[in-house]
Amino acid sequence: MSAVTGVQGTVAALRREVCALHEQLTRYQLVVWTAGNVSARVPGHDLLVIKPSGVSYDDLTPENMVVCDLDGKVVDGRHAPSSDTEAQAYVYREMPEVGGVVHTHSTYATAWASRGEAVPCVLTMGADEFGGEIPVGPFAMIGDDSIGRGIVETLRASRSPAVLMQNHGVFTVGPTARAAVKAAVMCEDVARTVHIARQLGEPIPIAQAHVDSLHHRYQNVYGQQKDRR
Amino acid sequence: MSAVTGVQGTVAALRREVCALHEQLTRYQLVVWTAGNVSARVPGHDLLVIKPSGVSYDDLTPENMVVCDLDGKVVDGRHAPSSDTEAQAYVYREMPEVGGVVHTHSTYATAWASRGEAVPCVLTMGADEFGGEIPVGPFAMIGDDSIGRGIVETLRASRSPAVLMQNHGVFTVGPTARAAVKAAVMCEDVARTVHIARQLGEPIPIAQAHVDSLHHRYQNVYGQQKDRR
Amino acid sequence: MSAVTGVQGTVAALRREVCALHEQLTRYQLVVWTAGNVSARVPGHDLLVIKPSGVSYDDLTPENMVVCDLDGKVVDGRHAPSSDTEAQAYVYREMPEVGGVVHTHSTYATAWASRGEAVPCVLTMGADEFGGEIPVGPFAMIGDDSIGRGIVETLRASRSPAVLMQNHGVFTVGPTARAAVKAAVMCEDVARTVHIARQLGEPIPIAQAHVDSLHHRYQNVYGQQKDRR
Amino acid sequence: MSAVTGVQGTVAALRREVCALHEQLTRYQLVVWTAGNVSARVPGHDLLVIKPSGVSYDDLTPENMVVCDLDGKVVDGRHAPSSDTEAQAYVYREMPEVGGVVHTHSTYATAWASRGEAVPCVLTMGADEFGGEIPVGPFAMIGDDSIGRGIVETLRASRSPAVLMQNHGVFTVGPTARAAVKAAVMCEDVARTVHIARQLGEPIPIAQAHVDSLHHRYQNVYGQQKDRR
Repeated sequence: MSAVTGVQGTVAALRREVCALHEQLTRYQLVVWTAGNVSARVPGHDLLVIKPSGVSYDDLTPENMVVCDLDGKVVDGRHAPSSDTEAQAYVYREMPEVGGVVHTHSTYATAWASRGEAVPCVLTMGADEFGGEIPVGPFAMIGDDSIGRGIVETLRASRSPAVLMQNHGVFTVGPTARAAVKAAVMCEDVARTVHIARQLGEPIPIAQAHVDSLHHRYQNVYGQQKDRR
Repeated sequence: MSAVTGVQGTVAALRREVCALHEQLTRYQLVVWTAGNVSARVPGHDLLVIKPSGVSYDDLTPENMVVCDLDGKVVDGRHAPSSDTEAQAYVYREMPEVGGVVHTHSTYATAWASRGEAVPCVLTMGADEFGGEIPVGPFAMIGDDSIGRGIVETLRASRSPAVLMQNHGVFTVGPTARAAVKAAVMCEDVARTVHIARQLGEPIPIAQAHVDSLHHRYQNVYGQQKDRR
Repeated sequence: MSAVTGVQGTVAALRREVCALHEQLTRYQLVVWTAGNVSARVPGHDLLVIKPSGVSYDDLTPENMVVCDLDGKVVDGRHAPSSDTEAQAYVYREMPEVGGVVHTHSTYATAWASRGEAVPCVLTMGADEFGGEIPVGPFAMIGDDSIGRGIVETLRASRSPAVLMQNHGVFTVGPTARAAVKAAVMCEDVARTVHIARQLGEPIPIAQAHVDSLHHRYQNVYGQQKDRR
Repeated sequence: MSAVTGVQGTVAALRREVCALHEQLTRYQLVVWTAGNVSARVPGHDLLVIKPSGVSYDDLTPENMVVCDLDGKVVDGRHAPSSDTEAQAYVYREMPEVGGVVHTHSTYATAWASRGEAVPCVLTMGADEFGGEIPVGPFAMIGDDSIGRGIVETLRASRSPAVLMQNHGVFTVGPTARAAVKAAVMCEDVARTVHIARQLGEPIPIAQAHVDSLHHRYQNVYGQQKDRR
């Protein structure tokens, strides 16, 4: 418990925020049963706040969120943390700019992942949010650093805040947990629309210069008012 | 603030109406996160009322709607207006008969848009509402009048109140904001049904004379009781 | 008003029932905006109760339902009746066993209708409910008896309580309005499942003798406790 | 009534649990109208608790659940039990390890069933939950032990708790009713994701050794905290 001394106010606020953000996962039908989760870094501390394992979304409360260190060990909480904690802790260790991580098996994105295919950038929304295609990471088994390493290496080679882990599902990151949730929502929306587009033909490509320009404007010009749309 | 003097009652009513109409966008799942918006012209004034930028649908109130002039400059409001304001202001400037505009990235309509394909008129509902196919407008970058001009030129060449902007999404218009929202709902419904029809074969065409007759009846015979169905 | 004298209690109950049944159309997403409706015959009288035209599902009340005679003329009600009233009145005139009619443009069923293809009977649920394929009726223009005649002729040639009107949508019938609503729900469910089945191959046919046996059992053995499942 | 004497507390708790679990079937849209049900074994007794036949999900209460013996005969209850009771009673008779059974016609799983195709194991979620493909059972007519026997024989030849009965729908089992409901939710999710994956190409297979390892870990390592995710 001593590990959270001095950051109790911050941790309490993050417990509330992480808990509440799960409502966006169910609202947009990105998850079923208990299969998806949100986490947040405790800024300035080697700690994260994450969903407890196997607890239904209806039963989540700020109190049952779990605080772990960045090796995934529980520091504060009555429940076991999500089984994805090791992978997410790895991301926080390796990517200091990341303040939030989300994991889902959202349907359309996971379908692309199961074929090992990146989602091409054929929508202005894709250019805005992902700056190009949504990339695919390697097949990785749970139980060591394989998933975390696959996420980090794939994200570093891309402008996208989302990665499709092969045969598995989606991981997204952001400067905050809320931004990571937005990326998860947008990832499924883009994956679904491009899937449906391709069912009846080929989408028209967007020139790389336009992709770059859209991404730059969305990420920079709107910098002080992110999320603008 | 002086710009809304004398129309304060009208503006207040439009703030309430525009705010409430966003519920139809979420109800019919035409939008995710903050990616879609409704606006209304203030009748008899060079003003429009539009959604604030980057505010979640759950957090919309009449008070946080934004009043702009028809160059897209804020006249009254604490928030920045939707990033689509310039495009919608252009439509109001050029099409005096338009009283409401809606923008979405609804899934099926945007899928047709990403292939640059118009939705063919193979449903009586399509003939009633759109008077023919739902047309595609050009690819246009945000930041100048390109999107607005693309919308207006495409709508002028068609009987449809909806246009699919290539690789982007949907814009609809109507004599009122409510009518534009109805067009957005119907556009997605028709785009989805025709998509699904074409997945397993070719829909049967409707003869042009029948399309004309259905559209004429729906738009005129039912004139004094529009929306009848 | 005199036309409903003597059946006021029955009419009042049917207003409540017809109003409430529209909630099933929205719940199962068979309709958008105002595009679908339920009606019920007033037993023993040449009258029907139907949804008013152009009124949103959220705004329906028992009081704004409309009572018409079987020529579709309003007998009691402040609103214009659904524009489908003539077609439904025709069905009540010609099919005395019908106590309820429902009209929707539900997505998958309408997709089959737009190709003019019957939904094949490859599910036990289809055999139970429809006794074979869900048949397609002719293309028919609104404004005379064409739609009503198309519905009746198609239903008479089939065991199905549902007909897909070409390029248009679905009409279902039943001994009660509730039964017609059930048929509309089941029609979309079967149309959707068979569509999805056929996207990746050919469903296995069910032998005609099994279809007959399933239908007979569902309709007869369970006769005194219809709806059993 | 005497048959439930001595287990009245257990039966009352199971009535509440079975009733409440139906909310998960509607929440995840696995059922329409009244077409799906949950049952639970009364531990240590030759009794089961099951949904009444033909009662809407909105109208379910603990009191209207039906208690039957393992021949499907009603022991306690005012309503007729689900028409699937005989099949489920057969499963309880033959598989003593089963504490709950669920039946649905969920869309994607039933689509695979109508083609007689097993859902291949190309997702880590499929390996975790089903330990391989989701198998197909035989076409079987209602009215004798055919359905029950088909379920049991198929499940015995597989690690999966779910079976797709050809041209019919899904049956799932679990040590508890809640576990069977989880299997039904996961079955549809996996069936849908793999369907969508295959629409645009071939999913990448997961090596059998990895499937075995994922399944073993999920079922055993997490044994004391099942449902962990």
